[in-house]
Amino acid sequence: MVELQQGERLDYLLAEDLKIIQSPSVFAFSLDTVLLAKFAYVPIQKGKIIDLCTGNGVIPLLLSLRSKSDITGVEIQERIFDMANRSIQYNQLDDRIHLIHGDLNDMPAKLGHGKFDVVTCNPPYFQTPGKDEMNKNEHLAIARHEIYCTLEDVIRVSSQLVKQGGKVSIVHRPGRLLDIVTLMRKYRLEPKRLRFVYPKEGKEANTLLIEGIKDGGPDLKILPPLVVYNQNNEYTEELKEILYGAKR
Amino acid sequence: MVELQQGERLDYLLAEDLKIIQSPSVFAFSLDTVLLAKFAYVPIQKGKIIDLCTGNGVIPLLLSLRSKSDITGVEIQERIFDMANRSIQYNQLDDRIHLIHGDLNDMPAKLGHGKFDVVTCNPPYFQTPGKDEMNKNEHLAIARHEIYCTLEDVIRVSSQLVKQGGKVSIVHRPGRLLDIVTLMRKYRLEPKRLRFVYPKEGKEANTLLIEGIKDGGPDLKILPPLVVYNQNNEYTEELKEILYGAKR
Repeated sequence: MVELQQGERLDYLLAEDLKIIQSPSVFAFSLDTVLLAKFAYVPIQKGKIIDLCTGNGVIPLLLSLRSKSDITGVEIQERIFDMANRSIQYNQLDDRIHLIHGDLNDMPAKLGHGKFDVVTCNPPYFQTPGKDEMNKNEHLAIARHEIYCTLEDVIRVSSQLVKQGGKVSIVHRPGRLLDIVTLMRKYRLEPKRLRFVYPKEGKEANTLLIEGIKDGGPDLKILPPLVVYNQNNEYTEELKEILYGAKR
Repeated sequence: MVELQQGERLDYLLAEDLKIIQSPSVFAFSLDTVLLAKFAYVPIQKGKIIDLCTGNGVIPLLLSLRSKSDITGVEIQERIFDMANRSIQYNQLDDRIHLIHGDLNDMPAKLGHGKFDVVTCNPPYFQTPGKDEMNKNEHLAIARHEIYCTLEDVIRVSSQLVKQGGKVSIVHRPGRLLDIVTLMRKYRLEPKRLRFVYPKEGKEANTLLIEGIKDGGPDLKILPPLVVYNQNNEYTEELKEILYGAKR
């Protein structure tokens, strides 16, 4: 049995045979995270995957369905790390998913350079503003604002952790595209696949998914657009397939 | 009357009341050029526009329908410059469209820095390969390969020609996106609008349209995807509207 703390719920994780602990006042995963889990390349049989800013562990949980790899998740907030840990235990995935409570900036020294086949990260999207504009809820503020890690930290550390030829997948906002690709090239992660997510047909993109290869050659592909809602404000067929479809 | 040379045709320019001289063995405009002419911001009432690598003048001709600006076109190949000039005369647009036979690299010295509200360019797409791989037809090779101007030349010269706050619009291949945005930032053209063109639903993008503003602040928007063909290999409704629709 899993112990739930105040305000926590044990939710079904999409259509999967998994459950996940969430709490609206502490942490609940977003659609972007699910899209990243489906976008990221992962070795099916074996390998080592690390998810930075793992939150309540949704990416490790979802990737465990697509890959037999060892999966590491890193979360800086102890309260959220603890939620993730209990979810992993509830789903009896402790043998394959290993969570670390710590700062991603310490991971290369702790885990070694070039040890991972795949790095994933859904980082905080917002550059840290003045205190007035920030979320009053400290847990949510840390998850959403670059308080403990900047975009450059995420990309530098991802590059240090991944093997040569390994892949780094990140989800972020289109407004940061130029910063992301500039930093990726600075840290020798050559952008290879870029997909934009549009809330609805005819609207501007509000999310991007990007994958880079450590020391890869230049050859960027722009994948087909992913549209979330149809004109009736229902999920498109592609979204339904991603959210509730086949497990792969 | 316009004099046609051997191999030349006088084609209707889309649904517009314009005709244009083309020649399959010398120069014929592409869909990409038309998309750029529709994508580019232009001042409606007055201003100064310059189109680099103007070819047979299709962008100046199309922009003349949307703007009362003075439009300059620059073409390095005398044979193609001459085709463009005769098309302008045929359409009696000599008072508003002025063509220059010359190298775009010489234009800032010749025309002055910061004099234009808008710069457009459909540059050669291909980095110059070995002689064996290049098009044997010299006219087509110069239009398609970076023989007389590199991508960096195009972006540096565009930045020199445009006013502060003015706009530069370019069409190119997605594989060059990272080079384009890196060079634009190097030459103080902040990317503001980016649109990907997909040949068909479910396919990767094969063309990109990008607009930057001289000394603009960072704020990139990813416009809705533009799909060229539907599943029956006919133009989509949006493409038909662009090609044959209302004049604006």
